[in-house]
Amino acid sequence: MCELLGMSANVPTDIVFSFTGLMQRGGKTGPHKDGWGIAFYEGRGLRLFQDPVASCESEVAKMVQRYLIKSEVVIGHIRHANVGKVALVNTHPFVRELWGQHWCFAHNGQLSDFEPPRGIYRPVGDTDSERAFCDLLNRIRLDFPDRCAAEDLLPVLLGACQEYRRKGVFNCLLSNGEWLFSFCSSKLAEITRRAPFGPAQLKDAELMVNFHAETTPDDVVTVLATEPLTDNEQWTLHEPGQWSLWRLGERVATGRMA
Amino acid sequence: MCELLGMSANVPTDIVFSFTGLMQRGGKTGPHKDGWGIAFYEGRGLRLFQDPVASCESEVAKMVQRYLIKSEVVIGHIRHANVGKVALVNTHPFVRELWGQHWCFAHNGQLSDFEPPRGIYRPVGDTDSERAFCDLLNRIRLDFPDRCAAEDLLPVLLGACQEYRRKGVFNCLLSNGEWLFSFCSSKLAEITRRAPFGPAQLKDAELMVNFHAETTPDDVVTVLATEPLTDNEQWTLHEPGQWSLWRLGERVATGRMA
Repeated sequence: MCELLGMSANVPTDIVFSFTGLMQRGGKTGPHKDGWGIAFYEGRGLRLFQDPVASCESEVAKMVQRYLIKSEVVIGHIRHANVGKVALVNTHPFVRELWGQHWCFAHNGQLSDFEPPRGIYRPVGDTDSERAFCDLLNRIRLDFPDRCAAEDLLPVLLGACQEYRRKGVFNCLLSNGEWLFSFCSSKLAEITRRAPFGPAQLKDAELMVNFHAETTPDDVVTVLATEPLTDNEQWTLHEPGQWSLWRLGERVATGRMA
Repeated sequence: MCELLGMSANVPTDIVFSFTGLMQRGGKTGPHKDGWGIAFYEGRGLRLFQDPVASCESEVAKMVQRYLIKSEVVIGHIRHANVGKVALVNTHPFVRELWGQHWCFAHNGQLSDFEPPRGIYRPVGDTDSERAFCDLLNRIRLDFPDRCAAEDLLPVLLGACQEYRRKGVFNCLLSNGEWLFSFCSSKLAEITRRAPFGPAQLKDAELMVNFHAETTPDDVVTVLATEPLTDNEQWTLHEPGQWSLWRLGERVATGRMA
Protein backbone atom coordinates (compact mmCIF):
# COMPACT_ATOMS: atom_id res chain seq x y z
CA MET A 1 0.00 0.00 0.00
CA CYS A 2 0.98 3.60 -0.37
CA GLU A 3 0.24 6.95 1.18
CA LEU A 4 -1.32 9.99 -0.41
CA LEU A 5 -0.87 13.69 0.28
CA GLY A 6 -3.00 16.45 -1.20
CA MET A 7 -3.36 20.18 -0.70
CA SER A 8 -5.83 22.79 -1.88
CA ALA A 9 -5.32 26.42 -0.80
CA ASN A 10 -6.63 29.88 -1.62
CA VAL A 11 -3.12 31.39 -1.64
CA PRO A 12 0.16 29.89 -2.84
CA THR A 13 1.22 27.89 0.21
CA ASP A 14 4.29 25.80 0.88
CA ILE A 15 3.65 22.23 1.96
CA VAL A 16 7.08 21.59 3.47
CA PHE A 17 5.67 20.82 6.92
CA SER A 18 3.28 18.10 5.71
CA PHE A 19 5.78 16.84 3.13
CA THR A 20 8.41 16.44 5.87
CA GLY A 21 6.00 14.30 7.87
CA LEU A 22 5.07 12.16 4.89
CA MET A 23 8.70 11.64 3.84
CA GLN A 24 9.48 9.97 7.20
CA ARG A 25 6.98 7.26 6.34
CA GLY A 26 9.04 6.47 3.26
CA GLY A 27 11.42 4.06 4.96
CA LYS A 28 11.69 5.51 8.47
CA THR A 29 8.39 5.62 10.39
CA GLY A 30 6.60 3.72 7.60
CA PRO A 31 7.39 0.96 5.08
CA HIS A 32 6.78 3.00 1.90
CA LYS A 33 10.34 2.85 0.64
CA ASP A 34 9.77 2.16 -3.05
CA GLY A 35 9.76 5.70 -4.31
CA TRP A 36 7.92 8.93 -3.87
CA GLY A 37 6.70 11.84 -5.93
CA ILE A 38 5.14 15.24 -5.52
CA ALA A 39 3.56 17.59 -8.05
CA PHE A 40 3.09 21.32 -7.48
CA TYR A 41 0.87 23.45 -9.68
CA GLU A 42 2.38 26.84 -10.33
CA GLY A 43 -0.25 28.70 -12.32
CA ARG A 44 -0.92 26.50 -15.35
CA GLY A 45 2.53 24.98 -15.00
CA LEU A 46 3.28 21.81 -13.07
CA ARG A 47 6.48 20.88 -11.24
CA LEU A 48 6.93 17.19 -10.75
CA PHE A 49 9.62 15.73 -8.50
CA GLN A 50 9.99 11.97 -8.25
CA ASP A 51 12.52 9.47 -7.06
CA PRO A 52 12.32 5.69 -7.12
CA VAL A 53 14.25 5.46 -3.80
CA ALA A 54 13.13 5.71 -0.16
CA SER A 55 11.97 9.27 0.45
CA CYS A 56 13.77 9.47 3.80
CA GLU A 57 17.07 9.05 1.90
CA SER A 58 16.28 10.94 -1.31
CA GLU A 59 18.49 13.85 -2.39
CA VAL A 60 15.60 15.24 -4.42
CA ALA A 61 13.33 15.09 -1.36
CA LYS A 62 15.89 17.03 0.66
CA MET A 63 15.99 19.71 -2.04
CA VAL A 64 12.17 19.94 -2.11
CA GLN A 65 12.19 20.41 1.68
CA ARG A 66 14.78 23.18 1.48
CA TYR A 67 13.24 24.91 -1.50
CA LEU A 68 9.94 26.47 -0.39
CA ILE A 69 7.77 25.87 -3.43
CA LYS A 70 4.46 27.66 -3.03
CA SER A 71 1.44 26.22 -4.75
CA GLU A 72 -2.35 26.24 -4.61
CA VAL A 73 -2.72 22.56 -5.48
CA VAL A 74 -0.30 19.77 -4.55
CA ILE A 75 -0.49 16.01 -5.01
CA GLY A 76 2.11 13.79 -3.34
CA HIS A 77 2.60 10.05 -2.93
CA ILE A 78 4.95 7.57 -1.28
CA ARG A 79 5.03 4.09 -2.68
CA HIS A 80 5.07 0.62 -1.24
CA ALA A 81 5.24 -1.38 -4.47
CA ASN A 82 2.81 -4.16 -5.16
CA VAL A 83 2.12 -4.11 -8.92
CA GLY A 84 5.03 -2.98 -11.12
CA LYS A 85 8.70 -3.04 -10.17
CA VAL A 86 10.44 -0.18 -8.36
CA ALA A 87 11.31 2.26 -11.14
CA LEU A 88 10.85 5.91 -12.04
CA VAL A 89 8.26 4.94 -14.66
CA ASN A 90 6.05 3.37 -11.96
CA THR A 91 6.35 6.27 -9.53
CA HIS A 92 3.29 8.43 -8.77
CA PRO A 93 1.93 11.01 -9.36
CA PHE A 94 1.21 10.49 -13.05
CA VAL A 95 0.68 13.41 -15.43
CA ARG A 96 -1.13 13.78 -18.76
CA GLU A 97 -2.36 16.75 -20.77
CA LEU A 98 -6.10 17.09 -21.41
CA TRP A 99 -7.89 20.23 -22.73
CA GLY A 100 -4.53 22.06 -22.75
CA GLN A 101 -4.16 21.49 -18.99
CA HIS A 102 -1.80 19.29 -17.02
CA TRP A 103 -3.80 16.65 -15.15
CA CYS A 104 -2.20 14.92 -12.23
CA PHE A 105 -3.21 11.73 -10.37
CA ALA A 106 -2.05 9.57 -7.47
CA HIS A 107 -3.58 6.36 -6.15
CA ASN A 108 -3.42 4.38 -2.95
CA GLY A 109 -4.61 0.79 -3.20
CA GLN A 110 -4.58 -2.05 -5.63
CA LEU A 111 -6.95 -3.20 -8.35
CA SER A 112 -7.32 -6.83 -9.44
CA ASP A 113 -8.13 -8.05 -12.95
CA PHE A 114 -8.13 -4.50 -14.18
CA GLU A 115 -7.77 -4.37 -17.96
CA PRO A 116 -9.54 -1.25 -19.22
CA PRO A 117 -10.04 -0.77 -22.98
CA ARG A 118 -7.27 0.94 -24.94
CA GLY A 119 -7.86 4.62 -25.59
CA ILE A 120 -6.03 7.81 -26.45
CA TYR A 121 -4.15 7.83 -23.14
CA ARG A 122 -1.95 4.80 -22.58
CA PRO A 123 0.14 3.79 -19.60
CA VAL A 124 3.92 4.13 -19.92
CA GLY A 125 4.68 1.96 -16.87
CA ASP A 126 3.26 -1.24 -15.41
CA THR A 127 1.03 -0.14 -12.53
CA ASP A 128 -2.71 -0.64 -12.14
CA SER A 129 -2.71 2.98 -10.91
CA GLU A 130 -1.49 4.46 -14.18
CA ARG A 131 -3.92 2.23 -16.08
CA ALA A 132 -6.76 3.63 -13.96
CA PHE A 133 -5.61 7.21 -14.56
CA CYS A 134 -5.47 6.66 -18.34
CA ASP A 135 -8.88 5.01 -18.30
CA LEU A 136 -10.31 7.90 -16.28
CA LEU A 137 -8.98 10.44 -18.77
CA ASN A 138 -10.18 8.36 -21.72
CA ARG A 139 -13.69 8.37 -20.24
CA ILE A 140 -13.60 12.11 -19.55
CA ARG A 141 -12.30 12.88 -23.02
CA LEU A 142 -14.99 10.76 -24.64
CA ASP A 143 -17.79 12.62 -22.86
CA PHE A 144 -16.11 16.03 -22.70
CA PRO A 145 -13.73 16.68 -25.60
CA ASP A 146 -13.61 20.32 -24.48
CA ARG A 147 -13.22 22.07 -21.15
CA CYS A 148 -16.12 21.91 -18.73
CA ALA A 149 -16.73 22.72 -15.09
CA ALA A 150 -15.55 20.15 -12.56
CA GLU A 151 -19.13 19.85 -11.31
CA ASP A 152 -20.22 18.62 -14.76
CA LEU A 153 -17.49 15.97 -14.71
CA LEU A 154 -18.65 14.45 -11.44
CA PRO A 155 -21.00 11.82 -12.92
CA VAL A 156 -18.17 10.42 -15.08
CA LEU A 157 -15.61 10.61 -12.25
CA LEU A 158 -17.89 9.00 -9.70
CA GLY A 159 -19.05 6.30 -12.10
CA ALA A 160 -15.43 5.37 -12.78
CA CYS A 161 -14.43 5.44 -9.09
CA GLN A 162 -17.36 3.22 -8.24
CA GLU A 163 -16.27 0.67 -10.86
CA TYR A 164 -12.63 0.75 -9.77
CA ARG A 165 -13.37 0.26 -6.06
CA ARG A 166 -15.28 -2.91 -6.89
CA LYS A 167 -11.96 -4.29 -8.16
CA GLY A 168 -9.98 -3.53 -5.02
CA VAL A 169 -8.86 -0.55 -3.00
CA PHE A 170 -9.08 2.82 -4.72
CA ASN A 171 -8.24 5.95 -2.75
CA CYS A 172 -7.19 8.69 -5.15
CA LEU A 173 -6.41 12.34 -5.74
CA LEU A 174 -6.92 14.03 -9.12
CA SER A 175 -6.41 17.62 -10.25
CA ASN A 176 -6.15 19.80 -13.32
CA GLY A 177 -4.73 22.70 -11.29
CA GLU A 178 -8.09 24.43 -10.91
CA TRP A 179 -9.65 21.97 -8.48
CA LEU A 180 -8.71 18.86 -6.48
CA PHE A 181 -10.91 15.76 -6.42
CA SER A 182 -10.56 13.16 -3.67
CA PHE A 183 -12.11 9.71 -3.48
CA CYS A 184 -11.92 7.43 -0.45
CA SER A 185 -12.54 3.73 -0.88
CA SER A 186 -10.96 2.75 2.46
CA LYS A 187 -8.77 5.43 4.04
CA LEU A 188 -8.34 9.20 3.73
CA ALA A 189 -8.14 12.00 6.30
CA GLU A 190 -8.53 15.76 5.94
CA ILE A 191 -7.94 18.92 7.84
CA THR A 192 -8.85 22.47 6.84
CA ARG A 193 -6.77 25.15 8.52
CA ARG A 194 -8.10 28.71 8.72
CA ALA A 195 -7.92 31.61 11.18
CA PRO A 196 -7.35 31.50 14.07
CA PHE A 197 -4.29 29.44 13.12
CA GLY A 198 -2.40 27.59 15.82
CA PRO A 199 0.60 25.34 16.30
CA ALA A 200 0.85 21.90 14.71
CA GLN A 201 3.11 19.03 15.74
CA LEU A 202 4.11 16.33 13.26
CA LYS A 203 3.45 12.72 14.26
CA ASP A 204 6.42 11.33 12.32
CA ALA A 205 9.19 13.81 13.11
CA GLU A 206 10.26 16.21 15.82
CA LEU A 207 8.84 19.20 14.01
CA MET A 208 6.38 21.81 15.12
CA VAL A 209 5.15 24.82 13.21
CA ASN A 210 3.07 27.75 14.32
CA PHE A 211 0.86 28.46 11.32
CA HIS A 212 -0.22 31.73 12.94
CA ALA A 213 3.21 33.18 12.16
CA GLU A 214 3.16 31.99 8.54
CA THR A 215 -0.33 32.91 7.39
CA THR A 216 -2.71 35.82 6.93
CA PRO A 217 -6.23 35.80 8.42
CA ASP A 218 -7.83 35.07 5.03
CA ASP A 219 -5.80 31.94 4.23
CA VAL A 220 -7.67 28.68 3.85
CA VAL A 221 -5.59 25.52 3.41
CA THR A 222 -6.93 21.99 3.23
CA VAL A 223 -4.56 19.05 3.56
CA LEU A 224 -5.55 15.48 2.71
CA ALA A 225 -3.51 12.45 3.76
CA THR A 226 -3.95 8.72 4.03
CA GLU A 227 -3.44 9.06 7.78
CA PRO A 228 -3.37 12.23 9.92
CA LEU A 229 0.05 13.87 9.80
CA THR A 230 -0.18 15.81 13.09
CA ASP A 231 -1.13 14.62 16.55
CA ASN A 232 -2.41 17.82 18.18
CA GLU A 233 -5.10 18.73 15.63
CA GLN A 234 -8.51 17.32 14.81
CA TRP A 235 -8.43 15.49 11.46
CA THR A 236 -11.65 14.27 9.88
CA LEU A 237 -11.62 10.70 8.58
CA HIS A 238 -13.45 10.02 5.32
CA GLU A 239 -15.92 7.18 5.05
CA PRO A 240 -15.62 4.48 2.39
CA GLY A 241 -17.33 5.80 -0.75
CA GLN A 242 -16.92 9.45 0.27
CA TRP A 243 -15.76 11.90 -2.38
CA SER A 244 -15.05 15.62 -2.30
CA LEU A 245 -14.27 18.39 -4.73
CA TRP A 246 -11.97 21.14 -3.41
CA ARG A 247 -11.32 24.57 -4.81
CA LEU A 248 -9.14 27.26 -3.20
CA GLY A 249 -8.99 25.33 0.06
CA GLU A 250 -12.75 24.93 0.42
CA ARG A 251 -14.92 21.88 -0.17
CA VAL A 252 -17.30 22.84 -2.99
CA ALA A 253 -19.06 19.50 -3.40
CA THR A 254 -19.15 16.22 -1.53
CA GLY A 255 -21.12 13.01 -1.29
CA ARG A 256 -20.95 9.36 -0.48
CA MET A 257 -21.59 6.34 -2.64
CA ALA A 258 -22.91 3.15 -1.09
CA MET B 1 16.81 33.01 -28.58
CA CYS B 2 17.58 30.01 -26.49
CA GLU B 3 20.16 27.26 -26.25
CA LEU B 4 19.68 23.54 -26.63
CA LEU B 5 21.52 20.61 -25.10
CA GLY B 6 21.07 17.00 -26.14
CA MET B 7 22.76 13.71 -25.33
CA SER B 8 22.56 10.21 -26.73
CA ALA B 9 24.74 7.49 -25.20
CA ASN B 10 25.13 3.72 -25.28
CA VAL B 11 25.50 3.50 -21.48
CA PRO B 12 23.78 5.52 -18.76
CA THR B 13 25.99 8.61 -18.63
CA ASP B 14 25.87 11.69 -16.44
CA ILE B 15 25.75 14.99 -18.26
CA VAL B 16 26.88 17.16 -15.33
CA PHE B 17 29.93 18.47 -17.20
CA SER B 18 27.97 19.73 -20.22
CA PHE B 19 25.06 20.87 -18.05
CA THR B 20 27.43 22.92 -15.92
CA GLY B 21 28.70 24.69 -19.02
CA LEU B 22 25.21 25.36 -20.34
CA MET B 23 23.95 26.68 -16.99
CA GLN B 24 26.55 29.48 -17.06
CA ARG B 25 24.94 30.80 -20.22
CA GLY B 26 21.72 31.19 -18.26
CA GLY B 27 22.50 34.66 -16.91
CA LYS B 28 26.28 34.53 -16.47
CA THR B 29 28.22 33.99 -19.71
CA GLY B 30 25.02 34.23 -21.79
CA PRO B 31 21.71 36.14 -21.71
CA HIS B 32 19.37 33.15 -21.40
CA LYS B 33 18.06 34.02 -17.97
CA ASP B 34 14.34 33.30 -18.43
CA GLY B 35 14.29 29.75 -17.19
CA TRP B 36 15.80 26.40 -17.96
CA GLY B 37 14.83 22.77 -18.03
CA ILE B 38 16.36 19.35 -18.47
CA ALA B 39 14.78 15.96 -19.02
CA PHE B 40 16.55 12.65 -18.34
CA TYR B 41 15.22 9.35 -19.59
CA GLU B 42 15.65 6.61 -17.04
CA GLY B 43 14.45 3.47 -18.80
CA ARG B 44 10.90 4.26 -19.87
CA GLY B 45 10.64 6.85 -17.11
CA LEU B 46 11.42 10.53 -17.56
CA ARG B 47 12.75 12.96 -14.97
CA LEU B 48 12.01 16.56 -15.75
CA PHE B 49 13.58 19.44 -13.84
CA GLN B 50 12.58 22.98 -14.70
CA ASP B 51 12.83 26.42 -13.18
CA PRO B 52 11.58 29.73 -14.57
CA VAL B 53 14.57 31.57 -13.08
CA ALA B 54 18.12 32.14 -14.35
CA SER B 55 19.88 28.78 -14.37
CA CYS B 56 23.07 30.23 -12.88
CA GLU B 57 21.04 31.09 -9.74
CA SER B 58 18.65 28.13 -9.64
CA GLU B 59 18.51 25.92 -6.54
CA VAL B 60 17.11 23.10 -8.66
CA ALA B 61 20.02 23.44 -11.12
CA LYS B 62 22.49 23.18 -8.23
CA MET B 63 20.80 19.99 -7.08
CA VAL B 64 20.91 18.52 -10.60
CA GLN B 65 24.64 19.30 -10.76
CA ARG B 66 25.31 17.60 -7.40
CA TYR B 67 23.08 14.62 -8.07
CA LEU B 68 24.73 12.50 -10.79
CA ILE B 69 21.72 11.39 -12.79
CA LYS B 70 22.77 8.84 -15.39
CA SER B 71 20.77 8.61 -18.56
CA GLU B 72 21.00 7.40 -22.15
CA VAL B 73 19.00 10.29 -23.59
CA VAL B 74 18.91 13.85 -22.27
CA ILE B 75 17.25 17.01 -23.60
CA GLY B 76 18.03 20.36 -21.98
CA HIS B 77 17.21 23.98 -22.73
CA ILE B 78 17.91 27.47 -21.41
CA ARG B 79 15.45 30.16 -22.34
CA HIS B 80 15.70 33.74 -23.50
CA ALA B 81 11.99 34.55 -23.70
CA ASN B 82 10.50 36.02 -26.85
CA VAL B 83 6.98 34.56 -27.18
CA GLY B 84 5.18 33.82 -23.88
CA LYS B 85 5.97 35.36 -20.51
CA VAL B 86 8.55 33.94 -18.11
CA ALA B 87 6.69 31.18 -16.28
CA LEU B 88 7.01 27.49 -15.50
CA VAL B 89 4.30 26.71 -18.05
CA ASN B 90 6.41 28.22 -20.85
CA THR B 91 9.64 26.49 -19.83
CA HIS B 92 11.13 23.81 -22.11
CA PRO B 93 11.46 20.88 -22.53
CA PHE B 94 7.81 19.96 -23.09
CA VAL B 95 6.53 16.43 -22.48
CA ARG B 96 3.54 14.46 -23.81
CA GLU B 97 2.65 10.79 -23.88
CA LEU B 98 2.26 9.06 -27.26
CA TRP B 99 2.08 5.27 -27.86
CA GLY B 100 2.55 4.74 -24.10
CA GLN B 101 5.91 6.53 -24.23
CA HIS B 102 7.01 9.88 -22.84
CA TRP B 103 7.97 12.18 -25.72
CA CYS B 104 10.13 15.17 -24.98
CA PHE B 105 10.87 18.26 -27.09
CA ALA B 106 12.88 21.48 -26.90
CA HIS B 107 13.14 24.27 -29.48
CA ASN B 108 15.53 27.09 -30.21
CA GLY B 109 14.16 29.82 -32.43
CA GLN B 110 10.94 31.61 -33.11
CA LEU B 111 8.06 31.00 -35.50
CA SER B 112 5.87 33.76 -36.91
CA ASP B 113 2.18 33.51 -37.78
CA PHE B 114 2.16 29.95 -36.56
CA GLU B 115 -1.39 28.76 -35.88
CA PRO B 116 -1.51 25.01 -36.47
CA PRO B 117 -4.90 23.25 -36.49
CA ARG B 118 -6.27 21.98 -33.17
CA GLY B 119 -5.68 18.31 -32.53
CA ILE B 120 -5.52 15.78 -29.73
CA TYR B 121 -2.43 17.41 -28.20
CA ARG B 122 -2.94 21.01 -27.12
CA PRO B 123 -0.51 23.53 -25.70
CA VAL B 124 -0.81 24.34 -21.99
CA GLY B 125 1.33 27.51 -22.20
CA ASP B 126 1.75 30.35 -24.67
CA THR B 127 4.87 29.54 -26.66
CA ASP B 128 5.18 28.90 -30.39
CA SER B 129 7.53 26.08 -29.34
CA GLU B 130 4.88 24.10 -27.45
CA ARG B 131 2.44 24.72 -30.32
CA ALA B 132 4.98 23.21 -32.72
CA PHE B 133 5.53 20.19 -30.45
CA CYS B 134 1.78 19.54 -30.19
CA ASP B 135 1.37 19.93 -33.95
CA LEU B 136 4.25 17.53 -34.55
CA LEU B 137 2.68 14.90 -32.28
CA ASN B 138 -0.75 15.43 -33.85
CA ARG B 139 0.75 14.75 -37.29
CA ILE B 140 2.62 11.67 -36.07
CA ARG B 141 -0.45 10.30 -34.31
CA LEU B 142 -2.60 10.81 -37.39
CA ASP B 143 -0.22 8.80 -39.61
CA PHE B 144 0.98 6.36 -36.95
CA PRO B 145 -1.62 5.65 -34.26
CA ASP B 146 0.62 2.80 -33.09
CA ARG B 147 4.32 2.39 -32.44
CA CYS B 148 6.63 2.35 -35.43
CA ALA B 149 10.36 2.59 -36.04
CA ALA B 150 11.89 6.06 -35.93
CA GLU B 151 13.05 5.55 -39.50
CA ASP B 152 9.43 5.21 -40.65
CA LEU B 153 8.55 8.49 -38.93
CA LEU B 154 11.19 10.47 -40.76
CA PRO B 155 9.00 11.62 -43.69
CA VAL B 156 6.43 13.10 -41.27
CA LEU B 157 9.09 14.64 -39.03
CA LEU B 158 11.05 16.15 -41.89
CA GLY B 159 7.93 17.44 -43.65
CA ALA B 160 6.88 19.22 -40.47
CA CYS B 161 10.37 20.65 -39.79
CA GLN B 162 10.54 21.93 -43.35
CA GLU B 163 7.21 23.74 -42.90
CA TYR B 164 8.17 25.19 -39.52
CA ARG B 165 11.53 26.56 -40.67
CA ARG B 166 9.76 28.51 -43.42
CA LYS B 167 8.04 30.42 -40.61
CA GLY B 168 11.21 31.38 -38.75
CA VAL B 169 14.04 29.70 -36.91
CA PHE B 170 13.51 26.08 -35.91
CA ASN B 171 16.35 24.18 -34.28
CA CYS B 172 14.94 21.34 -32.24
CA LEU B 173 15.55 18.14 -30.30
CA LEU B 174 12.91 15.40 -29.97
CA SER B 175 13.00 12.02 -28.26
CA ASN B 176 10.80 9.17 -27.08
CA GLY B 177 13.60 7.70 -24.98
CA GLU B 178 14.62 5.17 -27.65
CA TRP B 179 16.16 7.63 -30.09
CA LEU B 180 17.02 11.32 -30.35
CA PHE B 181 16.14 13.40 -33.41
CA SER B 182 17.88 16.71 -34.13
CA PHE B 183 17.00 19.34 -36.69
CA CYS B 184 19.12 22.39 -37.49
CA SER B 185 17.54 25.36 -39.21
CA SER B 186 20.33 27.78 -38.27
CA LYS B 187 22.64 26.59 -35.49
CA LEU B 188 23.55 23.29 -33.87
CA ALA B 189 26.87 21.65 -33.00
CA GLU B 190 27.76 18.07 -32.13
CA ILE B 191 30.56 16.02 -30.73
CA THR B 192 30.80 12.25 -30.38
CA ARG B 193 33.19 11.07 -27.71
CA ARG B 194 34.55 7.52 -27.84
CA ALA B 195 37.83 5.76 -26.97
CA PRO B 196 40.51 6.95 -26.70
CA PHE B 197 38.89 9.49 -24.38
CA GLY B 198 40.77 12.61 -23.39
CA PRO B 199 40.42 15.73 -21.31
CA ALA B 200 37.80 18.39 -22.03
CA GLN B 201 37.77 22.02 -20.88
CA LEU B 202 34.51 23.97 -20.59
CA LYS B 203 34.32 27.28 -22.44
CA ASP B 204 31.96 28.87 -19.91
CA ALA B 205 33.43 27.82 -16.57
CA GLU B 206 36.74 26.86 -15.03
CA LEU B 207 36.03 23.18 -15.27
CA MET B 208 38.00 20.38 -16.85
CA VAL B 209 37.19 16.71 -16.93
CA ASN B 210 39.25 13.75 -18.05
CA PHE B 211 36.71 11.46 -19.68
CA HIS B 212 39.32 8.70 -19.79
CA ALA B 213 38.95 8.29 -16.01
CA GLU B 214 35.14 8.18 -16.16
CA THR B 215 34.46 5.87 -19.07
CA THR B 216 35.01 2.36 -20.37
CA PRO B 217 36.52 1.71 -23.83
CA ASP B 218 33.13 0.79 -25.30
CA ASP B 219 31.31 3.98 -24.30
CA VAL B 220 29.93 6.17 -27.08
CA VAL B 221 28.44 9.50 -26.07
CA THR B 222 27.16 12.18 -28.44
CA VAL B 223 26.46 15.67 -27.15
CA LEU B 224 24.53 18.26 -29.15
CA ALA B 225 24.50 21.96 -28.26
CA THR B 226 23.56 25.23 -29.90
CA GLU B 227 27.20 26.26 -29.58
CA PRO B 228 30.23 24.14 -28.70
CA LEU B 229 30.57 23.74 -24.93
CA THR B 230 34.29 22.97 -24.79
CA ASP B 231 37.22 24.80 -26.36
CA ASN B 232 39.82 22.04 -26.66
CA GLU B 233 37.78 19.56 -28.71
CA GLN B 234 36.66 19.45 -32.32
CA TRP B 235 32.90 20.06 -32.56
CA THR B 236 31.09 19.61 -35.87
CA LEU B 237 28.71 22.40 -36.87
CA HIS B 238 25.46 21.38 -38.57
CA GLU B 239 24.35 23.04 -41.77
CA PRO B 240 20.94 24.71 -42.12
CA GLY B 241 18.46 21.98 -43.08
CA GLN B 242 20.59 19.19 -41.61
CA TRP B 243 18.85 16.54 -39.54
CA SER B 244 20.11 13.48 -37.69
CA LEU B 245 18.69 10.50 -35.90
CA TRP B 246 20.75 9.20 -32.96
CA ARG B 247 20.54 5.92 -31.14
CA LEU B 248 22.85 4.73 -28.35
CA GLY B 249 25.29 7.54 -29.08
CA GLU B 250 25.62 6.77 -32.79
CA ARG B 251 24.15 8.61 -35.77
CA VAL B 252 21.87 6.09 -37.48
CA ALA B 253 20.43 8.37 -40.17
CA THR B 254 21.15 11.86 -41.43
CA GLY B 255 20.40 14.15 -44.33
CA ARG B 256 19.98 17.72 -45.39
CA MET B 257 16.96 19.53 -46.80
CA ALA B 258 17.44 22.42 -49.17
